[in-house]
Amino acid sequence: MTPSPFPVIRLKPKTSPKAVRFGAPWVYDNELVTDRRTKAIAPGTIALLEDAERAPLALVAVNPASRIMARVLDLDTSATIDRAWLTARLTRALALRTRLYDAPYYRLIHAEADGLPGVVIDRFGDTCVIQPNAAWAEVMLDDLAAATAEVTGARNILKNASGRARGLEGLDDASSVLIGAAPDAPVQVPMNGATYLADLTGGQKTGLFFDQRPNHAFAARLSQGARVLDVFSHVGGFSLAAMAAGAASALAVDGSEPALALAQGGADAMGLGEAFQTRRGDAFDVLTALGQEGAQFDVVICDPPAFAPSKKALEAGLRAYERTARLAAPLVAQGGYLGLCSCSHAADIDAFRRASLRGIGRGLHETGRSPQLIHTGGAGPDHPMHPQLAESGYLKALFFRL
Amino acid sequence: MTPSPFPVIRLKPKTSPKAVRFGAPWVYDNELVTDRRTKAIAPGTIALLEDAERAPLALVAVNPASRIMARVLDLDTSATIDRAWLTARLTRALALRTRLYDAPYYRLIHAEADGLPGVVIDRFGDTCVIQPNAAWAEVMLDDLAAATAEVTGARNILKNASGRARGLEGLDDASSVLIGAAPDAPVQVPMNGATYLADLTGGQKTGLFFDQRPNHAFAARLSQGARVLDVFSHVGGFSLAAMAAGAASALAVDGSEPALALAQGGADAMGLGEAFQTRRGDAFDVLTALGQEGAQFDVVICDPPAFAPSKKALEAGLRAYERTARLAAPLVAQGGYLGLCSCSHAADIDAFRRASLRGIGRGLHETGRSPQLIHTGGAGPDHPMHPQLAESGYLKALFFRL
Repeated sequence: MTPSPFPVIRLKPKTSPKAVRFGAPWVYDNELVTDRRTKAIAPGTIALLEDAERAPLALVAVNPASRIMARVLDLDTSATIDRAWLTARLTRALALRTRLYDAPYYRLIHAEADGLPGVVIDRFGDTCVIQPNAAWAEVMLDDLAAATAEVTGARNILKNASGRARGLEGLDDASSVLIGAAPDAPVQVPMNGATYLADLTGGQKTGLFFDQRPNHAFAARLSQGARVLDVFSHVGGFSLAAMAAGAASALAVDGSEPALALAQGGADAMGLGEAFQTRRGDAFDVLTALGQEGAQFDVVICDPPAFAPSKKALEAGLRAYERTARLAAPLVAQGGYLGLCSCSHAADIDAFRRASLRGIGRGLHETGRSPQLIHTGGAGPDHPMHPQLAESGYLKALFFRL
Repeated sequence: MTPSPFPVIRLKPKTSPKAVRFGAPWVYDNELVTDRRTKAIAPGTIALLEDAERAPLALVAVNPASRIMARVLDLDTSATIDRAWLTARLTRALALRTRLYDAPYYRLIHAEADGLPGVVIDRFGDTCVIQPNAAWAEVMLDDLAAATAEVTGARNILKNASGRARGLEGLDDASSVLIGAAPDAPVQVPMNGATYLADLTGGQKTGLFFDQRPNHAFAARLSQGARVLDVFSHVGGFSLAAMAAGAASALAVDGSEPALALAQGGADAMGLGEAFQTRRGDAFDVLTALGQEGAQFDVVICDPPAFAPSKKALEAGLRAYERTARLAAPLVAQGGYLGLCSCSHAADIDAFRRASLRGIGRGLHETGRSPQLIHTGGAGPDHPMHPQLAESGYLKALFFRL
């Protein structure tokens, strides 16, 4: 037996190797022998993971600075983790997206579930944006960019380093152009019949939330001829899809002027004219004001940022979801629809639904109206889940008829 | 105050009236004062529910023979429960379905969630099938049939008395024609681009499962050019939708000859020829045989009957789901898709996913293939949920890429 070309890390005697053998994607620091040699491994190094009996288990990416100290790359310990390996993973991921979508606008790589731990890649036609949120991907970034260009044929490969997870991995926040050039204007993205503008260099995340695509589509189905209110609209995800599906009018509300400018730009590209309006302001203030004005809409959607990003923030987060529902429900005309979304990991679907129903109940107090829950949606299929992480599905969308 | 025209039933002093006030749809026998007078109320009688202090709470339908002794009909205690009241509920339900669907084939009434407790109505174009699964609906059946005909314009109104819940309500199982005539041949149902045959007088339930429509559509999206295996096919729900979406071939497997004859009839109506095949047999036997033959498919769907219909049957049911996944997974070609469905109330989504993943893991043992969970689906929006019963969502569909 030739010596392994990799550094070796080892499970503690008390850690069963079964979890990794059965597909667990992560090994935590407290499950590993963390001697001085292990702690000296440079972040992002590929290593061989052995069980306590020194039997090889997997090739892993090590980051001694992270609580997730090892991320499983391949259970085949004879694999070579190189550009060809990246190409194979990307090719497999592309095949799913090509089957799902007619046009090349989607999340191409969704981290662990697509076999590239900590890596997110969004594709906007000719431009791909890589978020290397784990140290190994930062180390292999040139290969990753080249493989992405090769597999997709995209001309521009950008690095987005704004992900919060990078801090936990000890990585910087310097975004850059890896291949080609950054688009000099927001990119037009066709989705659900609408046209969105995505700002790939200045926007939040990678400029557009592909995960909401099926929920945009569901709301659009309800919106023919409707007056639509899109709260926390970002670049107009729900409102522009509704307009494309024949809504009579839409009002997009957001606190961010740049987001609303992009929403308006999408509306202009679609030729919507006066039927599409924006209103800048704190969402709670605007919801309150609309209530005082007696405004009524046939479809109201609230897609707030994560109110409960952590377990510590859960209670306050659920109160914020309840408040959102309470302020939004009275704005829905009799027989109309209310869509409430949560992208909080910490708030599970039952807790989010209960908070939403409490809010609706308070908002509709003494009107005699009772809600029907007509649909529960999650993230689109270009956001696959790793089977061992499936209970953590973060995105929930509840659609009520009031 | 004039005396109420209804018999009165009353909550026990220890039962809080809050649940009913906040929308609970049911009151159980142990929450009510069940004196001799209450027990003598004829099943299906409309009564006034009062709290222990004799304050009126709701109009309810009473069945002293059922554990669910009172079903809330209206929180407005001055309402009149008559044909006009039924018409209003039906009109409201129809508005949702008309918004959702281009053609009149859907579940029109989904019981409590549509404000008609215990009542299910499916619409097949000109024919509606009523399942009056609570005593009050049996009592008001003529009004219900007339209101359904009036609101929908359907010419034929049938009664399907095969629902298991009728036994719990003390109702018989005599189906009949209420208005018009029973169709003299299976009805053609257009759905997801496919044509299904529904046998409205002889089939299971009301002859077709509308609830799986969005899951049929999702599977169809994966099926272009694919070899599709549809296990527990019933009348071809998944396989015919896949063929309509461009599948290369489909094999429908079911234990029921009449179901397969209807599936074949749908395929004939679609002009599918030899590309559509059926195979009659026990699903586990056929899955095992296909494995021994080395058969491979690009898309495999298993949509079994409820393996865990009750909490008592949960463990055995989860083992059956695991076995289904174990036998089905090896039939999926590399990079192909596996759809696993459960319509068991007792198996919640986490338990069903774990059982499915265990089965997939065992089925793919030592192949090095790891599954991605790409989509979790539920029942379609013509099956709304009552907010207080929402945790009981029975239908789950998991789509994996292997």
